[in-house]
Amino acid sequence: MSQLLQDVVGELQKLPGIGRRTALRLAMHLLRMEPESVDEMTRSIDRFRHDIKHCSRCNNLSDSDICPICLDRERDQSTICVIEQVADLLSIEQTHQYRGTYHVLGGVISPMQGIAPSDLKIDLLCDRIAQGGIKEVILAISTSVEGETTLFYLMSRLRQFADLKVTTIARGIGFGDELEYVDELTITHALLNRRPLE
Amino acid sequence: MSQLLQDVVGELQKLPGIGRRTALRLAMHLLRMEPESVDEMTRSIDRFRHDIKHCSRCNNLSDSDICPICLDRERDQSTICVIEQVADLLSIEQTHQYRGTYHVLGGVISPMQGIAPSDLKIDLLCDRIAQGGIKEVILAISTSVEGETTLFYLMSRLRQFADLKVTTIARGIGFGDELEYVDELTITHALLNRRPLE
Repeated sequence: MSQLLQDVVGELQKLPGIGRRTALRLAMHLLRMEPESVDEMTRSIDRFRHDIKHCSRCNNLSDSDICPICLDRERDQSTICVIEQVADLLSIEQTHQYRGTYHVLGGVISPMQGIAPSDLKIDLLCDRIAQGGIKEVILAISTSVEGETTLFYLMSRLRQFADLKVTTIARGIGFGDELEYVDELTITHALLNRRPLE
Repeated sequence: MSQLLQDVVGELQKLPGIGRRTALRLAMHLLRMEPESVDEMTRSIDRFRHDIKHCSRCNNLSDSDICPICLDRERDQSTICVIEQVADLLSIEQTHQYRGTYHVLGGVISPMQGIAPSDLKIDLLCDRIAQGGIKEVILAISTSVEGETTLFYLMSRLRQFADLKVTTIARGIGFGDELEYVDELTITHALLNRRPLE
């Protein structure tokens, strides 16, 4: 096997979900691409890895010190939606329903994985609220055990801000879910939080 | 969304089987990788795309003009296994059962996709046999309609070499296949080519 091919297959396997076969298929695809197009791709990867920053306010990925969402005066800067990771921000943005700001924790508390509250951007969140002007914090954290732990920890930390409204996103049956296959905890939540028909 | 992130996600989506979500997941993984490790990966991609050659004898991918398999005097240079693509060569090599050489056609004849015999390395194969010293050509082509067409075309071209032994790999039930789910054509072939128990 060619050394160049062996190298590229080995390197592509560093990526998650890419095994030997897929790496090989990707390598063959690279050969069918224009060299300029491959150059563009590798350049964008290098630029991304070296130049990307974290917003010093909300910890979102950003090209500059403060991210465009935090700078956007059209958005409601008094509302913060707290999320685990940047991917969650993108999912929420795609709904076009939320016009507030975000705060990216960078994970959830997980004693198993050795992630303590101090490893997350919780102090940064508290500092941000302490500066004033924040009316509501929406906690949009996963419903996993780690997520719930993080939620309770956040609630205890946020209790210090007397006038702050703290909410969590609704738990319930997702659209398209069949009741038959939904777990008991979700059904319990959905029943307890039932709403009158409007 | 950060421009740098947007760029890298867009570029990664050029790869087959990688949609927006996967591209985003890969980008997030890149951030967790050491910058040097990412550099190594992009360098290996660039080197592969720009420096890889095709063996002038067998059309295998190669770092040099003639590939190591064609240069290897330990291998049986009188036997050629004709395959569609480099990935097939790697699959056969992994069995460690074949000690001859290869010939990579670069695809199969496909009028639908506009691939004519002249687009494949068939002339190169005939030239190679015409030079002498080849005793057997094994045709290891897919059993698709295009594969069968290519097989018949190759057989008609190889008929000019009087003393050449031309074989095809055996068709039959694969190991682990359940007879119940095997298609009729394969079962027919497997029955017709049945062998006495040894």
